[in-house]
Parts: sequence; structure tokens; C-alpha cells
Amino acid sequence: MRAFREWFEDYQKNHRFQVVPRGLDQLDGWHFQEDSGNLVHRSGRFFSIVGLDVRTNFGHVHHWMQPIINQPEIGILGFLTRRIDGILHFLIQAKMEPGNVNGAQISPTVQATHSNYTMAHGGKRVPYLNWFLDSTSAKCLVDQFQSEQGARFLAKRNRNMIVQVHDDEPIDILDGFFWLTLGQLFALLEEDNLVNMDSRTVLSCIRFAESDLGEVSAEEKGDSASFGVDVLESLRCGDRFGLHDFNALTAWLTRMKTTYSLRIQRAPLNRVAGWVFDNGVIRHHQNRFFTVIGVEVAIDNREVGGWHQPLIESAKGGVICFLCQKHRGILHFLVQARVEPGNFDCLEMAPTIQLTPSNYDANNPERLPPFTNLLLDIEGVVRRYDAVQSEEGGRFYQDQNRYLVLELEPGRPIPLPANYVWMTIRQMKEFIRFNNFFNIEARGLLSCLCPKLPAPRGRAV
Amino acid sequence: MRAFREWFEDYQKNHRFQVVPRGLDQLDGWHFQEDSGNLVHRSGRFFSIVGLDVRTNFGHVHHWMQPIINQPEIGILGFLTRRIDGILHFLIQAKMEPGNVNGAQISPTVQATHSNYTMAHGGKRVPYLNWFLDSTSAKCLVDQFQSEQGARFLAKRNRNMIVQVHDDEPIDILDGFFWLTLGQLFALLEEDNLVNMDSRTVLSCIRFAESDLGEVSAEEKGDSASFGVDVLESLRCGDRFGLHDFNALTAWLTRMKTTYSLRIQRAPLNRVAGWVFDNGVIRHHQNRFFTVIGVEVAIDNREVGGWHQPLIESAKGGVICFLCQKHRGILHFLVQARVEPGNFDCLEMAPTIQLTPSNYDANNPERLPPFTNLLLDIEGVVRRYDAVQSEEGGRFYQDQNRYLVLELEPGRPIPLPANYVWMTIRQMKEFIRFNNFFNIEARGLLSCLCPKLPAPRGRAV
Repeated sequence: MRAFREWFEDYQKNHRFQVVPRGLDQLDGWHFQEDSGNLVHRSGRFFSIVGLDVRTNFGHVHHWMQPIINQPEIGILGFLTRRIDGILHFLIQAKMEPGNVNGAQISPTVQATHSNYTMAHGGKRVPYLNWFLDSTSAKCLVDQFQSEQGARFLAKRNRNMIVQVHDDEPIDILDGFFWLTLGQLFALLEEDNLVNMDSRTVLSCIRFAESDLGEVSAEEKGDSASFGVDVLESLRCGDRFGLHDFNALTAWLTRMKTTYSLRIQRAPLNRVAGWVFDNGVIRHHQNRFFTVIGVEVAIDNREVGGWHQPLIESAKGGVICFLCQKHRGILHFLVQARVEPGNFDCLEMAPTIQLTPSNYDANNPERLPPFTNLLLDIEGVVRRYDAVQSEEGGRFYQDQNRYLVLELEPGRPIPLPANYVWMTIRQMKEFIRFNNFFNIEARGLLSCLCPKLPAPRGRAV
Repeated sequence: MRAFREWFEDYQKNHRFQVVPRGLDQLDGWHFQEDSGNLVHRSGRFFSIVGLDVRTNFGHVHHWMQPIINQPEIGILGFLTRRIDGILHFLIQAKMEPGNVNGAQISPTVQATHSNYTMAHGGKRVPYLNWFLDSTSAKCLVDQFQSEQGARFLAKRNRNMIVQVHDDEPIDILDGFFWLTLGQLFALLEEDNLVNMDSRTVLSCIRFAESDLGEVSAEEKGDSASFGVDVLESLRCGDRFGLHDFNALTAWLTRMKTTYSLRIQRAPLNRVAGWVFDNGVIRHHQNRFFTVIGVEVAIDNREVGGWHQPLIESAKGGVICFLCQKHRGILHFLVQARVEPGNFDCLEMAPTIQLTPSNYDANNPERLPPFTNLLLDIEGVVRRYDAVQSEEGGRFYQDQNRYLVLELEPGRPIPLPANYVWMTIRQMKEFIRFNNFFNIEARGLLSCLCPKLPAPRGRAV
């Protein structure tokens, strides 16, 4: 890892990265459309900021309007992998994104919107992309659609990919790229703001072959303090060890989709009630939720050297938390069925807690989502994962959330609202094979459990 | 079965069923909307006929307009089951639908649109419905969203349900209802136009517990003539026996969804190019594809005694066919990735062949879909299933398709276009657990394989 750290520090030092705020009405290439007021690029590509009218019976607020990112094209988030000395390595990229709090973060080998790889911006060709486009040249380990933030994107999905080239295939390592083992990549997930959101979602799609999961010794098994062993057991246990079998979970999800409604309608951005264009930004009139800002970007290693673009700046202090608890001796995670306006199919499964406290009215604490009190409860709660992670820096400005996994002592009764259910990790992984079941916050947090697995750490299958 | 047949014949004899054509502009309760010309019910409920503008890169025709059924609400198709003398029985309903060719067909216990069960038509309460609405009163064996015809419906889905009441629960058998075992129900699938489309889709969701599948004796195993044994093996073989593993199939599907595009836009029905309102019906100017007709219905056992409604009358002669072939000794089915305008997510997996020959230009036989020639090929092709089945009589007028399963001799090479892939039944069943992967034609045909399974036939799990 020392080689990686030195390389990464050098990279950060040697690359220019500058982001300067600029009014949305002052962005080169972007303008507000005449009639709708939607914020669009003159090419008609990349993404646009549009208005949305939202009606739902989920939660406390049943009708609102908001700006949302519309990016209907499907991009690629992909890791190139190769076996080196018998061990599968992932080609990571140190990638600077305008919204990053700290310059470069670890990104997949390829992180390309459709505009990117068809070169709508007339820049450089995306390196290594061909391995992902030509399905015959490399072995495809993962290729799934997965959703992105439903509160910010309108039905956005990306292809999450991992491809493996032949052991003998010569791969040029370009500036900004580095080989890491999966174990190293997992270990780096323990650190703040280092493994970017796109990496986390791709890593969450990895399934482990039984042979790749470490054997658990008898002592380890007896060691009740080993959270890693519990994670492993929850990952490989058969369906019958779950509190609910998979059938029952599917039925629960169908009931939830029938119970909750989501009706959205596009609206002109200049007619979005409650939001104002003011001083070059679009903000909520109470300064809550998020603000659409403009930035001027100079990053020296991207396809183009500089550009202007809108970014979303969310309210600070977000928390994304899974509660887990042993049931019948197996670790279960408390999953929430959650409606978000941009969801492809009404609701997706989400972490137990997903909130930004400042978005809630301090005078109405009873409106806080369920289980929020457990964030303050130190009795009988063990903090299993606690790190600050960044959301996608290409669209979000310095957006960090605290990612938490809290374990409750076994036997402590937790009354569940109807839209919460306990699942094993194996069951969650089963849903993740199919698109639009688990949201990106849940998938990202789930990938943070991987470093907890006992060695040897798995390889992708 | 004799008891069933006598009961069913009696039922057909004793119930009135009359459908008379009536111009779309003469239907009580229905009218063409002022501006759009869309055909709607005055209550704003049930369904409507709207226009659609379709653009896709799939197939030979890349842009067209068409009428389509818009029915955004999610209905319930559900079988009530109970163990009687230790054997699971399904409560079937003899149901007359205006579009049926033959009066009543076997339908699920409950077949209710949302309008139905919230009693928008002011009729009788849907019997047995409560067992499906109250998840605590019966054990839920199946509860999944599944799609309906993407060529006729705009993103329509229904809940496919099977619930099991406790063995001691007294269930009143109302007029028109009858208990059948799953084995009996399967056997009736061998007959023409008897088990309706809604029953077939629900039956396709059944998964079998290992213990419910018959033991195959050594003789049976050695008997290459036993198609049933081959079906059983294909249903329970592990992923590694497939030509492709499940991961590779998911990746293939993702590639297909990236390769093919579908862009639809609602259009006013009176602006749908190529279609004319003429003599009380809406038809294609070349009399192809389908016609929207109006009917006056009198059926005496429905929630209301008589009504008017539009129905879709499709071109005759449709064929829905799976090709299957043994690969590595395991029966595989040739699955098509197919774009249809009403699909929820661009494409779904479909049978190998799904066509109505009269919709194709006889002068351009090269435009017929792949494998159509095999329908005429009698060399080395064994007909494993061949029956005429009806589509949903509540929306379609006398719409019958020939459902076929053809087995090709092993080793015969079949060149595959990129949007076709071989799968085991187990792999297909795995996709069916999740909504909007297999289309209703494929699911319906798959359920017709069940009678082939060696006894004892399974129970739902």
C-alpha cells in the first residue's frame, strides 16, 4: 500500500484542480431555455436541470415541486481487472471531479457518460473504454444497470461493469491509473472521502464465489466479538436462515409498491413553486434541501482542460445508516422501502436511516424519520462502520455523508413500521443482481462492509 | 376431473353470455375526448385508448404511431389455495369475458382491476378479495408484479398472487368457483382455450421446492424420449449446467438494453398517422395489426349485468413459439430480447418466435423474424406442445394464438442473432421472480410446460 499512497500523493500534488463559483446565467455553453426556464447545454447533451411536480402518499409531505437533474443517457462505470501473479487486480483511476472536497478520489477505470464516450465535448478519447464496449475482448464479470440518487436524478441509471482481460494481455498503465488488489481497495473504503461513489456502487455488485470466501476457523466462529465473521455468515447463509425467506421479501416489496404511490410530472423550471433564482443560483426559499450553483472548472488531466457546469450543493450533515442485529444467530440488516421522486419504479430499498437533519423542521421532532433516535443512543449500540464518504463529484458540490453501520444488541425489540424489513446480506445481494431494487446509498454502504470480511478477501465472480 | 367437467359444462349451459358489436361512438359511458380524440370512460377510470408515437432501432420499422390501451392502475390476479386432504387445491373461477371465443374459461379466484375492487362501477363486491388485501389473514406464496402485452398496453402491470389459507379455514364455495389441484390445473393447460391468460401468468410464477419435484427413476432418466424428464432436469439443474451462467445472462440483457432504444411519446388518438376511424371502429389503413371495436355485453354473473366497452381485435393467426434444444445434455430454451412499445423498461425477454404472419408484407419474406422457417420444418423438429390459447378476454376480442414448443435435435447448429440466447428453465424462472424481465407471452408458454413434469407434480412455494 505504501507504493499506492506515494503515487496517490504525488498525483494530488502534481495536478491542477481549480473550481470557482460562477452564476448559472454566466456559464459558457449553458442557458435557461426561453419558455421553460430549464437549464440546458447548447449541444442538447450532457444533462439539464428541469422542474418536477411530485405527488406521493409516502412520508409527511404529499406534494411538492423541485428542480431535478435530467440525464436520460446511460453511462458506464467500469473496472478493468487482470490477474497479476495469480491475484485479481483492479485498475483504479485517480480522478479529479469539480465537486470533490479533496481533489482526486479513487474512481473506476472508466467513468463515462454517453456524451463522454461518443465525445460530444470534442475532447480526448476515454482511455480503456474499448474493453467495455467490445464484449468479445474481455471476460465480463459484472454488467448491470444500477440507479443513482432518486432525490436528485430523474430515473438515472448507469451500467456498472467489471471486465477481466486475459492474464497475458499487455495493459499500458497511463498517468493517473494504478493496479490495486480487491483487498487493498476494500481496505481503503475504511478511509474518509477516498473511494468515490462510482467505485462504491460497482464494488457493491460483486458476488463472491464460495471458494473465495475465507474459511472461518472454529475459534473465529466462537468469537462473538468478530463482526467480520458475522458479516461473512450473513453473506453466505442460505435463504432458510433469514427471518423471512426471499419469497416473503419479494411479496413485501410488491405490497409496498402497491401501498405507496408516486406521481411525477415534468414542470418548467421557472414554475417550480418554492424555489427562486437569486444571485446566480437556484435555491429553496427557506434555504433548505439543496441549491443549484454554477462553477468554472480547471482540471488538467480531463478530456478537456476547462469548462463551466451546474452542480448541486446539498444541505450539509447527511447521515446514511444501516442498523443491523442478530436474529436467530445471523446478522440481519434493517431495510427501508423508500419513495424518491426520481425512482424508476416508485420505490427502492434504502438504508434504515437516510436523512439530512437540517431539512427537517426543528420544531417538529416527531416528523424525523423512524430510528433517528438510535443515532444518539450509545447504550447497546455498537458502531461497526463510521466514515465520511463523498457523493459523485461530477454532479454534486462537496457533498459528503456520514456512512454508518450500527449493530444493536441481540434481543432488543425494535418495533418496525410496515415499510421496514430485516434481511441477510445474502438476500440483499440477491436483489442487487437485478436493477432498481436497492438505491445507491444502500449499495454504497453495503460495499463498506467488505473490508470487514475475514481474509482471504474474495475475488469477483 | 369428471366432476369438474360436469360442473364446468353446466356452468357454460346455465349462464347467459352475449356480445354484440356497437360503434365506438355509440358506447354508453364512453366518449372521444374533445381535443385529443382519446377514447375514455366518463368516470375517468377503467382504461382508455390513447395514441402513441414510437421510435426504436429494433426490427425493420423504426418509427410508427399506434393506438394503445392506457390502464395505469395495478390490478390483482390471484389464486386462493388451501390444503384439502393434505393436497394443495386452487380455487378456480369459471369466468365469462366479453372477448372469449367460448364463454367461460378457467380464471384465477380473483381477477380484479383497481376500479373493480374499489367498485368504481358500483357493482357487487369482488368475492374472496379480502384474502388478497389483508396480508395477515393468509400465507402469501406468490406476490409479484408482472407485465402484460407490451404491444397493446402502455406499461401495464398486475400483481400476480397466490395465497394459502389455513387448512381449517372454512371457505364458502360460491357459484362459479371450484377447487382443482395443481396437477389438474396443469393437465387442463393441454387443452385449447380453457385456462385463461391470467391463470397462465400466475401459474408461471410458481417455484417448486426440491421436495415437490418427483424423483426421476433410473429408467426414466435413461429414456431419451421422455421430454418431461428433460423439462424437470432443466428446471432443477444448477447454474453451472447452463450454456451461460446467470451472470453472463444478466450482462447479455444489459448489453441488449444498451443496444436497443425505445422512445415513446403520447399522442392524441385523432393524430395517429396510418389509423382511421371508420364505421364505428379504429383500424389501420391497410387493415393490419389490430382494430379497436366497441361491444355491448350481457353476462349474468358479473358485478354488473351488462355494459358497453371497447375491445382490441388483433389480426388472426398469431404464433408464440419457444425453440428448445439440448446443450450439454440439458434442455435449453431460445430466448429473445424484444422491444415492444408499451414495455416498462425498453425490452423484455420473449419467446423465440412471436409473430402474426399477416402483419408482414408477403412480398418481403426476408423481413419475417428469425427462425420463422422452423415453423414449417418437419425434419429434426419435434412438437412438444401445441395448443391454441386465448389472450385476456376483458380487453381482446377473440384473440387466440397458437402456443408451440418445438425441440430441435441436439447438435443441429442454429446461428443466433445477437438478441437471442439459450437458457435453462431454472434460469428463466430466476428472472421471473423479478418483475418485467419475461413478457406475458413467454410466461404463459412456460406455464404450458408444467403438465409435462413427471408426477408427483409440485406445490407452490
